[in-house]
Amino acid sequence: MTLKIGVIGTGAIGREHIKRITQTLAGGKIVAVTDVNQESAKQAVEQFNLDATVYPDDKSLVAADNVDAVFVTSWGPAHEASVLETIAAGKYVFCEKPLATTAEGCLRIVEAEKKHGKRLVQVGFMRRYDSSYVQLKEVIENKEIGEPLMIRAAHRNPTVDENYTTDMAAVDTLVHEIDALHWLIDDDYKSVQVTFPRKTKHALPHLQDPQIFNIETMNGVAISVEVFVNCQYGYDIQCEVIGEEGIAKLPEVPSVVMRKGGNLSAGILQDWKKRFMDAYDKELQDFMDSIKETGEPNGPTAWDGYIAAVTTDACVKAQQSGEKEAIELQEKPALYKKSITELQTQ
Amino acid sequence: MTLKIGVIGTGAIGREHIKRITQTLAGGKIVAVTDVNQESAKQAVEQFNLDATVYPDDKSLVAADNVDAVFVTSWGPAHEASVLETIAAGKYVFCEKPLATTAEGCLRIVEAEKKHGKRLVQVGFMRRYDSSYVQLKEVIENKEIGEPLMIRAAHRNPTVDENYTTDMAAVDTLVHEIDALHWLIDDDYKSVQVTFPRKTKHALPHLQDPQIFNIETMNGVAISVEVFVNCQYGYDIQCEVIGEEGIAKLPEVPSVVMRKGGNLSAGILQDWKKRFMDAYDKELQDFMDSIKETGEPNGPTAWDGYIAAVTTDACVKAQQSGEKEAIELQEKPALYKKSITELQTQ
Amino acid sequence: MTLKIGVIGTGAIGREHIKRITQTLAGGKIVAVTDVNQESAKQAVEQFNLDATVYPDDKSLVAADNVDAVFVTSWGPAHEASVLETIAAGKYVFCEKPLATTAEGCLRIVEAEKKHGKRLVQVGFMRRYDSSYVQLKEVIENKEIGEPLMIRAAHRNPTVDENYTTDMAAVDTLVHEIDALHWLIDDDYKSVQVTFPRKTKHALPHLQDPQIFNIETMNGVAISVEVFVNCQYGYDIQCEVIGEEGIAKLPEVPSVVMRKGGNLSAGILQDWKKRFMDAYDKELQDFMDSIKETGEPNGPTAWDGYIAAVTTDACVKAQQSGEKEAIELQEKPALYKKSITELQTQ
Amino acid sequence: MTLKIGVIGTGAIGREHIKRITQTLAGGKIVAVTDVNQESAKQAVEQFNLDATVYPDDKSLVAADNVDAVFVTSWGPAHEASVLETIAAGKYVFCEKPLATTAEGCLRIVEAEKKHGKRLVQVGFMRRYDSSYVQLKEVIENKEIGEPLMIRAAHRNPTVDENYTTDMAAVDTLVHEIDALHWLIDDDYKSVQVTFPRKTKHALPHLQDPQIFNIETMNGVAISVEVFVNCQYGYDIQCEVIGEEGIAKLPEVPSVVMRKGGNLSAGILQDWKKRFMDAYDKELQDFMDSIKETGEPNGPTAWDGYIAAVTTDACVKAQQSGEKEAIELQEKPALYKKSITELQTQ
Repeated sequence: MTLKIGVIGTGAIGREHIKRITQTLAGGKIVAVTDVNQESAKQAVEQFNLDATVYPDDKSLVAADNVDAVFVTSWGPAHEASVLETIAAGKYVFCEKPLATTAEGCLRIVEAEKKHGKRLVQVGFMRRYDSSYVQLKEVIENKEIGEPLMIRAAHRNPTVDENYTTDMAAVDTLVHEIDALHWLIDDDYKSVQVTFPRKTKHALPHLQDPQIFNIETMNGVAISVEVFVNCQYGYDIQCEVIGEEGIAKLPEVPSVVMRKGGNLSAGILQDWKKRFMDAYDKELQDFMDSIKETGEPNGPTAWDGYIAAVTTDACVKAQQSGEKEAIELQEKPALYKKSITELQTQ
Repeated sequence: MTLKIGVIGTGAIGREHIKRITQTLAGGKIVAVTDVNQESAKQAVEQFNLDATVYPDDKSLVAADNVDAVFVTSWGPAHEASVLETIAAGKYVFCEKPLATTAEGCLRIVEAEKKHGKRLVQVGFMRRYDSSYVQLKEVIENKEIGEPLMIRAAHRNPTVDENYTTDMAAVDTLVHEIDALHWLIDDDYKSVQVTFPRKTKHALPHLQDPQIFNIETMNGVAISVEVFVNCQYGYDIQCEVIGEEGIAKLPEVPSVVMRKGGNLSAGILQDWKKRFMDAYDKELQDFMDSIKETGEPNGPTAWDGYIAAVTTDACVKAQQSGEKEAIELQEKPALYKKSITELQTQ
Repeated sequence: MTLKIGVIGTGAIGREHIKRITQTLAGGKIVAVTDVNQESAKQAVEQFNLDATVYPDDKSLVAADNVDAVFVTSWGPAHEASVLETIAAGKYVFCEKPLATTAEGCLRIVEAEKKHGKRLVQVGFMRRYDSSYVQLKEVIENKEIGEPLMIRAAHRNPTVDENYTTDMAAVDTLVHEIDALHWLIDDDYKSVQVTFPRKTKHALPHLQDPQIFNIETMNGVAISVEVFVNCQYGYDIQCEVIGEEGIAKLPEVPSVVMRKGGNLSAGILQDWKKRFMDAYDKELQDFMDSIKETGEPNGPTAWDGYIAAVTTDACVKAQQSGEKEAIELQEKPALYKKSITELQTQ
Repeated sequence: MTLKIGVIGTGAIGREHIKRITQTLAGGKIVAVTDVNQESAKQAVEQFNLDATVYPDDKSLVAADNVDAVFVTSWGPAHEASVLETIAAGKYVFCEKPLATTAEGCLRIVEAEKKHGKRLVQVGFMRRYDSSYVQLKEVIENKEIGEPLMIRAAHRNPTVDENYTTDMAAVDTLVHEIDALHWLIDDDYKSVQVTFPRKTKHALPHLQDPQIFNIETMNGVAISVEVFVNCQYGYDIQCEVIGEEGIAKLPEVPSVVMRKGGNLSAGILQDWKKRFMDAYDKELQDFMDSIKETGEPNGPTAWDGYIAAVTTDACVKAQQSGEKEAIELQEKPALYKKSITELQTQ
């Protein structure tokens, strides 16, 4: 059984997903594409030699009879409308982050899904599919380190371009930790406070870099995430969970170990795409497989998209106020109480 | 374009490859299966819900009009005949190791392929597709460690069953290093001598374990490979290349780093299948992709299968004689002078 | 030339230093001892077979003609008086931490030393003599990581006894980081805020454990030190300095690397004494050598003792208030502007 | 109690030991020196401001009433005579390697010591005092890896000067492994075979470099030691013992861990002196302490010196013959059956 997919947005990330479905993964087929730039949609069909129809807009694509599932890979402000339309049509939707640009928009999607009665939406937080994070989560769930007490994480990029602004450290960069960390320890966030350390000379005048986000969870876990996007040395994702019985840490990305020129060394990635390449493949494969096997996607939910929106809002507020800001969620609907995976593994 | 594949041999490894093509990889379709046990072939079709014909034997499967390529995953002694038939039909063939059970058999395949005029055969040596080995080869080819002078490798399994015999250390275990190491340093083997160190108490009486294979190459590189199949602690593949300017070594398999109970530790794999799971996927994906892109498979050739046969023969002889045994190859046919990849990357 | 030493306080640490001078290090001789418990002083003489006089009190010991230098290893509240007496006598003094139990007491010592006109006092902060810290400081001073922006440190003990109270996390444990970190980056502290993460079940009811001390320096460096004294797994000192050009981190304590039982592992120390054993030797050797070579001790000064006192005071206040507390020092006297070592290495 | 020491040979290593005794270690005093170059002996007295007599030759120094123990740090060919004289005088002697330049010379010393009836001689094999080797030996003795089956070791120097010849790889370089490895696994050597891999371009024409020494022990342990003295990248001592239950390996020399310029790295030593600096201190301290405590030195014995001589002889023969050469020892005298340490720790 092949899942027939329509793609809304044929820019860079849309084409990467088209390539994955077409050249790398099993079980899916791109049958429909659209883009606000119709020329781009047509080029994508040519580039990947797709047997797919080009639609004039997201509505017509979602409505197409042969479309089973929709990928929303347009620009952020357009996500909410496309996702709501797909839910209204009772079809599956894989939406790149952000699910919506506001917490209210995310809640509207949650409400629509609740009304539909089962989960249709998966949000593109790929870290949950990274084998290192999966292994780290297993260690925590197996109580190998006891109850988590603290998390120390870092998200470092070698450099960023001039369009990168201080709030993007929260909205575009930290957002991956925001999704991954509450999932990792099965907890909710309570508050956040932001510290601006001495600024690196490599950051442009308008940008505060590095930044430290100190987040407290409902269970009292103290999370500290360093975001440092001009660290120079490489793309580096660190995460260490300190528990009552021990500590568990993401391994370094494997790289040939050299003894040369007075140093024992191993390379550090420069390009963030390489770090989570496998995770991107796995999130889409899992989206297709779990729909086929269980009738629901199994990955990050619309509720997770809502958590990310509320938390990044609080982070931006905390950047501006310098104070501890509350992170307040609505009550969690029953639909999201447990992910299918979590229920299955219990 | 989908590559239509016939599978000869639906045992364990045959079914794993069927699963890969059907559930994991893009671009291939299983259209035909056969097995000396016809019931097994039928079960495979059911198990994976294949749209495939069950053929009574390899000849009829190879001859089927809709079969573009053949996977030979039967037992070793049957490989040669199936491969020769496929070449005779001018079709592509992916053959699990051994290509043939004798060096002479391998040469017959080489001759058949030469006669055909282009490469059709890929042998299932998957290590060349392991990302760590690929990275190690790049380091060597980029002359980062200068000319290779020595290699220290180890192939360790936690335990083996009672059917594992002393010669299998060469034929079934070392054979992976035999293929990988000459590819790694682009060299040919000259001689081998085997040392039997003190035997572990965990080996059964009939088995010599561990063993050390000291291999010399035409360029004078001194290779030492430890084969230790009752090492108890895990499945562990080590490879270190010592060069004129430095040393390069395969990284450890990444695993969550723990601080617990007085130890800083990381898990070691127990199951060999997990070590090269990605490599198995990649070798088949590359087999399909390179046929589509270049008209020839790009992986280990029939000539590599021949090298493995000659070298394992010499290793078994050296196990018995205790002496240094020569490894003598025929002259390399022009067809195998350079792999396509190597030509492309130059 | 032998430095003739009098020891005030012959308890555990006093006897360890006596043992060092007598059995391990070159260039010193214990010629005088005293203790409020005279019996203890006599036992120390016997235990180490010393050729030393037992004095009835610190005054008489300090006054003894053949005493060149004094070790103050009595209990904390007695330190200030003994140090002041030794300065008044114009003799050298090595004083275990704390220099005095109050910042005011430390200032009185600083004033006395200023009046004397050259440095006589060394405080027993041994980390500056640990080879790993020394190497880390070199890396920073050589600008290999550019300007320091952040420090992440941890001070973990497997367990503590029931007498260990929440304030001791600052006064007895963190105090070592307090001395080491400002020395490491040649900076002064500005403020501290304390976070109490979820408490480990292994801490007794009266003890807050773990604790996080977020310290800001005058240059804006953001320091975060985790103190976790019931971490169960071992004694572990971590320190990582994140700079503009890269990151430098203390190495793990070297330990035999094992592959066994499914794990790649190395032991972690359980006993804090082993971690800094070499540093204890080196601080005393340096105290003796630098007095002989330069006429002044070369290690942590009375001013460093004062910094530690002011900073631990602020930390205890921050534990209680939950707020950011200022760390305010008097102006630094010229006498302490540069340590001799720093001047020499420039 | 101070051990009064006479030094025969005031060249580089003699002066280093004088410095240790005078400036670093407790419990010894240099009271006598001599050198074939009397001027050098006088300079040493001045340089270290010694309260010591300069003697015209080794005989008169050994005979001096106030000399308790002798350090033999002259050139190799002179060692035997000085050691025999010291034994004849019933005094302790610490002799740098080689104990004698021939196996027969070593046996003469062994005979003299047997006749004297207790051990007086310690040979300067310092690796036994290196904390990493000590820890590795403990792991083996505690049976943590079961019975040893194989050892893989490497001895690498960045470069050597033009005076370094092929046989020196055995006599001057490998000799340290020769002493350390039989001690490590409490075994005796049986045979050695030497392999010359492809030669590095960095070796001068007269020098074979690298070399591999394959040594078999009486218990069947297969030892492979790589000697590579122009490895370019640093001074690097590796030793891994593969046992029935697991593997134990010397840790890397600790060094600050850097993330910089695309690499995760740690420095490798360039200077061999730094690698074993602590071990040099400890061997002399132990020589003095154990004489005081037990009446006998506790380190490598004259018998160990004899083993080293016989084994290096066989290694040189094997370099020349290319064949497996036997390593044959006389029967071990009872005097050397167990070292004092080994007896004490049982």
